[in-house]
Amino acid sequence: MSLLERILAGDRLSLARLLTQIENEDPEGFQTLSSLFPRTGRAHLVGITGAPGTGKSTLVNRVAQTLRARTGAAVAIVAVDPSSPFTGGALLGDRIRMRDLSGDPGVFIRSMASRGALGGLARTTAAVVDAFDAAGFGWVLIETVGAGQAEVEIARTAHTTLVVEAPSLGDDVQASKAGILEAADLLVVNKADLPGADNAVRALQSSLELAANLRPVWDHHGRLEITEVEPAGQPAWIPPVLKTVATLGEGIPEVVEAIRSHRIHLEGSGGLKRRDRERLSAEVHALLGERLLEQFLSSGRGPELGAALERVVAREASPREAIEALLGRT
Amino acid sequence: MSLLERILAGDRLSLARLLTQIENEDPEGFQTLSSLFPRTGRAHLVGITGAPGTGKSTLVNRVAQTLRARTGAAVAIVAVDPSSPFTGGALLGDRIRMRDLSGDPGVFIRSMASRGALGGLARTTAAVVDAFDAAGFGWVLIETVGAGQAEVEIARTAHTTLVVEAPSLGDDVQASKAGILEAADLLVVNKADLPGADNAVRALQSSLELAANLRPVWDHHGRLEITEVEPAGQPAWIPPVLKTVATLGEGIPEVVEAIRSHRIHLEGSGGLKRRDRERLSAEVHALLGERLLEQFLSSGRGPELGAALERVVAREASPREAIEALLGRT
Repeated sequence: MSLLERILAGDRLSLARLLTQIENEDPEGFQTLSSLFPRTGRAHLVGITGAPGTGKSTLVNRVAQTLRARTGAAVAIVAVDPSSPFTGGALLGDRIRMRDLSGDPGVFIRSMASRGALGGLARTTAAVVDAFDAAGFGWVLIETVGAGQAEVEIARTAHTTLVVEAPSLGDDVQASKAGILEAADLLVVNKADLPGADNAVRALQSSLELAANLRPVWDHHGRLEITEVEPAGQPAWIPPVLKTVATLGEGIPEVVEAIRSHRIHLEGSGGLKRRDRERLSAEVHALLGERLLEQFLSSGRGPELGAALERVVAREASPREAIEALLGRT
Repeated sequence: MSLLERILAGDRLSLARLLTQIENEDPEGFQTLSSLFPRTGRAHLVGITGAPGTGKSTLVNRVAQTLRARTGAAVAIVAVDPSSPFTGGALLGDRIRMRDLSGDPGVFIRSMASRGALGGLARTTAAVVDAFDAAGFGWVLIETVGAGQAEVEIARTAHTTLVVEAPSLGDDVQASKAGILEAADLLVVNKADLPGADNAVRALQSSLELAANLRPVWDHHGRLEITEVEPAGQPAWIPPVLKTVATLGEGIPEVVEAIRSHRIHLEGSGGLKRRDRERLSAEVHALLGERLLEQFLSSGRGPELGAALERVVAREASPREAIEALLGRT
């Protein structure tokens, strides 16, 4: 049996091997993935983001177990750590291996650390998600460690985006919340047994009112457009704010039901197809940009580019002037 | 007088106007910046990154005041908030306006929020830094809110990278530290009056030993190479771990002296020129990629790209297959 056939037969070791090939940018892995691609588009993708210290990992584990128990479908967790370019995610890997998921073979965890630039990680994550999707996982939870924009960009490729908060994490948290709130389909205040949980819920609800019915959309140039969430005539989705104590399992069933409700909402409103198209469009544009740069560099114009860089280093031309001269503009 | 002349004469309002033009991607702004570019390359750039809740903003303000007092040079603070794509950084802006810098006209603060994709913010930040540099600021402090990889990528374009930690911020902090530590030239444990400060210092020091003499370098494909910090024969820089209580001003003079020592070290070891070249090389490659994609899209091949995307959405081709077909590969 080929690797492809073994993956489709449910062999987890073969799947793990494919994921490693994808992470290593092995051409064989991309070929297998292309063969698998027609089988994608069935899994429901849940992006989970939030600042360090919110107890995100514990929450994700609990949600995975409950999704598995309630729906019977296999659940994949893709834990992305964009802030670990140097260690290759070794620390994160250790932490994840220690997670207690009761040895359930229906829950599969894969940790990913950046091996290069941001764009690379986003694309590799998309490929890993596709592999799980094609392999028949019904739910793919994409958990990002950290809460910078990279993490938000990765999370917003999902169908359902869940933002995790915790009461009073520090003075910078209010500001860092500002950007990710509007991407949220679901807000969870974890560690709700700590003081300040109700305040956090109220603060989130009033922020949501400000952003009601609006959603940021990025075009392929990365420019931001603000559009309404749903076409006129469709009922809008109002992001619920839920409280959990993940360490005790409290509130987890409600989170799982909210995810399932959101899925049903998306199916009814056409949002599922729209988000799928947005995700694939971003992937196609990013790949195109990468390939165009590769083509330029392998077309024998490397020395010209080197000379342009020298002019910039010598402050004889600004970066823009140098590139415009290189591409023959005025 | 033109805007350019007024900026060079030290007019702060004209500088602020140029910065707004750059943020709005106004062609006039980029033209002024190109005229200013020959005057860049003199400021010392300090990148400051760290997780929310570490008291980074207070530390940056104190460092700015002390740098100003000790060196007499003008200091710019560029506060970058990549996690706020939707609000346009309004919250951050408010927070920054409230900062107490005693009305010193020799310290200039500019907050920047993302208006689109990550790459855009990194490039706009580079342009704003160039504007301050050309306008004669001796020190430019680039402070990033949040500690994801985007923030690290922005911080590592600086000459000196300062990573701020605080004692015991939560269970995710150990993991998120892993990636940014190796980019640090200087480590600061702020809030050192809290319990656990000495433990944090020890943990950082032992992590540093692991990474001694190694530094991650990204090539223009965003691939990671691990290289030695200094060419053989040069003394390596050993990142000091300092303790501060920024709210009380404790430890700030030591941080400022460490920044100045690092500058002197870089001048002696050739590291200053190397980092300058790396920074400009990243900028030139990013601009080239952006322009190539623009050229492709404006060359009349938009409909072909649209058709390729439809094939992907229909799962008739994987993103890679579709792009390779588009660019005429096998």
